[in-house]
Amino acid sequence: MTESHQVHAVIPFRPVNPKTRLSAVMDQKEREAFARAMLGDVVSVLLEAGCLPCILSTVPFEYPGVRTHIDERELNEALNAYLSLQETPVLVIMSDLPLTTPDAVKRIVSGTADVGIVPGRGGGTNALYIRTPQAYHVDYYGASFCDHVRIAEDAGLSYEVIDSFFMSTDIDEKEDLVEILIHGGGRSLSFLRETGLALSLERGRVGIQRSSHE
Amino acid sequence: MTESHQVHAVIPFRPVNPKTRLSAVMDQKEREAFARAMLGDVVSVLLEAGCLPCILSTVPFEYPGVRTHIDERELNEALNAYLSLQETPVLVIMSDLPLTTPDAVKRIVSGTADVGIVPGRGGGTNALYIRTPQAYHVDYYGASFCDHVRIAEDAGLSYEVIDSFFMSTDIDEKEDLVEILIHGGGRSLSFLRETGLALSLERGRVGIQRSSHE
Repeated sequence: MTESHQVHAVIPFRPVNPKTRLSAVMDQKEREAFARAMLGDVVSVLLEAGCLPCILSTVPFEYPGVRTHIDERELNEALNAYLSLQETPVLVIMSDLPLTTPDAVKRIVSGTADVGIVPGRGGGTNALYIRTPQAYHVDYYGASFCDHVRIAEDAGLSYEVIDSFFMSTDIDEKEDLVEILIHGGGRSLSFLRETGLALSLERGRVGIQRSSHE
Repeated sequence: MTESHQVHAVIPFRPVNPKTRLSAVMDQKEREAFARAMLGDVVSVLLEAGCLPCILSTVPFEYPGVRTHIDERELNEALNAYLSLQETPVLVIMSDLPLTTPDAVKRIVSGTADVGIVPGRGGGTNALYIRTPQAYHVDYYGASFCDHVRIAEDAGLSYEVIDSFFMSTDIDEKEDLVEILIHGGGRSLSFLRETGLALSLERGRVGIQRSSHE
């Protein structure tokens, strides 16, 4: 099926002032470096899973060996414009999923439904595999998982939900960093360690602390 | 392998005053009913996946058609005493995982490692499949995922991590109820609906509200 070809994967990315909910533990420059580290982990996994990644950036941006498409519009507009030009299946995958594994990517792109959805926590959508991009559109924000199911149903497309903890873990808040420190690797984990961010244990609950010498 | 036999599954359960972190949206009687509803969903999935469930309760407790074992000690002591008596593989699964699917249960019990671990968020452990229960022990609380990896390594046992969003979703806090309302079914979803708990959308973020007439 699709596994014998390289699946086209698009990664929306905001290089400037990303991840503002991490401002309590990282300044803007660090958040930009961290976002790039997470992007790097996602790119590596996509390549390992046999996909052909393309970064959809809000501003001119270069990443070694990866094609970049620039669209300054907001996420839905930029992605839907992009999808309308694609004639083969597309994997839309967020850049803040550093725990994503090649196995999880293979599970979504080897599915049999018209649309494969990886939910994020809180009703989000972390990845979408769309066999016929011109017959579908995305609607992020709010309970986008429910919207993406409904959009498939309205278009007469079948869908399936891919059950992956690692791919459902998007990194938005300080508490999410715990997941990288426990389960992660690659550039994101290295960045956190270099920045002095480490696990803390208070009253039996796992949290995050930053060493004062950084 | 193990799939041809019924896998023994133990579910620790606290019937009295459970889930205190849900106190802001449920009184004690409701929390007890909700905990039982979630337990019911877990039991149903285990039966559907071909497992033989046993409830390890802190107090005398009856559940139709399911064997119950009483141990009033805290979780680690009770479970380790239980495991020390088992001579065949055991699945330890928490009772607050109402999104668990038969597929995820089959994935863990059909693994090839000595120990299969399903992480929860924040370093937790939501399920453990232990092939040789007398050669292993559990240590919940804190970053138990890391402890359970280390205990396997110290005992010379191989381990694998099972990647499931649905099984990694334990229901502890108000925000976790969002996952049941979006992805759930069965008794837990029915209970939330009957209790008047529903999704809310505020500034693009999905939350929980309780109708005032309840």
